[in-house]
Amino acid sequence: MSYDTDNIFAKILRGEIPSEQVFQDDDTLVFMDIMPRVDGHCLVIPKTPCRNVLDASPAQLAAVMATVQRMSHTVMAAFGATGVTIQQFNETDGGQEVFHLHFHVLPRHAGQSMRPPGKMEDMAVIKANAEKIRAALTAD
Amino acid sequence: MSYDTDNIFAKILRGEIPSEQVFQDDDTLVFMDIMPRVDGHCLVIPKTPCRNVLDASPAQLAAVMATVQRMSHTVMAAFGATGVTIQQFNETDGGQEVFHLHFHVLPRHAGQSMRPPGKMEDMAVIKANAEKIRAALTAD
Repeated sequence: MSYDTDNIFAKILRGEIPSEQVFQDDDTLVFMDIMPRVDGHCLVIPKTPCRNVLDASPAQLAAVMATVQRMSHTVMAAFGATGVTIQQFNETDGGQEVFHLHFHVLPRHAGQSMRPPGKMEDMAVIKANAEKIRAALTAD
Repeated sequence: MSYDTDNIFAKILRGEIPSEQVFQDDDTLVFMDIMPRVDGHCLVIPKTPCRNVLDASPAQLAAVMATVQRMSHTVMAAFGATGVTIQQFNETDGGQEVFHLHFHVLPRHAGQSMRPPGKMEDMAVIKANAEKIRAALTAD
């Protein structure tokens, strides 16, 4: 399977469409999922083209996982979470909807289920949750 | 949070309890989940102690992700799958039940939901699915 340079995360990386970004380093970008399954649900992506885990380079996997780990700690601090769930989907039948490698980072709390997928959140809520993550990163 | 050397995956690594192993290299081990949510559901773990993503070293994450990638290709070939879902749980509230770092690798097919968690599979079925994975690895 090839990489489609017009996928929406490629457009986010090029600044062609907006996103609520919370962190970046040389190799990775983190922004809020606009259909969050829990408050603070964010996505970690490599800055370079990659369809999913099946075609990722060792360097892309290493960079993305380092940021997944960092963001796991950060969202726990930002939301007082007591656990983190990581999800990653490959190809349509594996649950993938945007064909640029991404890891979902979901802060979790006792007794709290994830909301069903596919429901757009109010942008004011997303922006407020992004701000909590940025504040937790600053406090690192 | 500390590492409990008596968790069941540590016991599997020490050979103290049985598991249906399908692959290993110097740093990682892969064996079948005994409560599979799809046929071919397997688990990738580091051979060295690590509670979860929150305390993993860069080397542990790199080794485990390399094996996750390899097994993703392998289970697709072994089961004729058209997608792969990766799940990884951290701490009880994040969904973790065994406190040794593990990634779930789930081969997926069009229109096929995952089964609910927590149901033990017949060992004969698990052994047959393990054999399919071993055969696909041999054909690599």
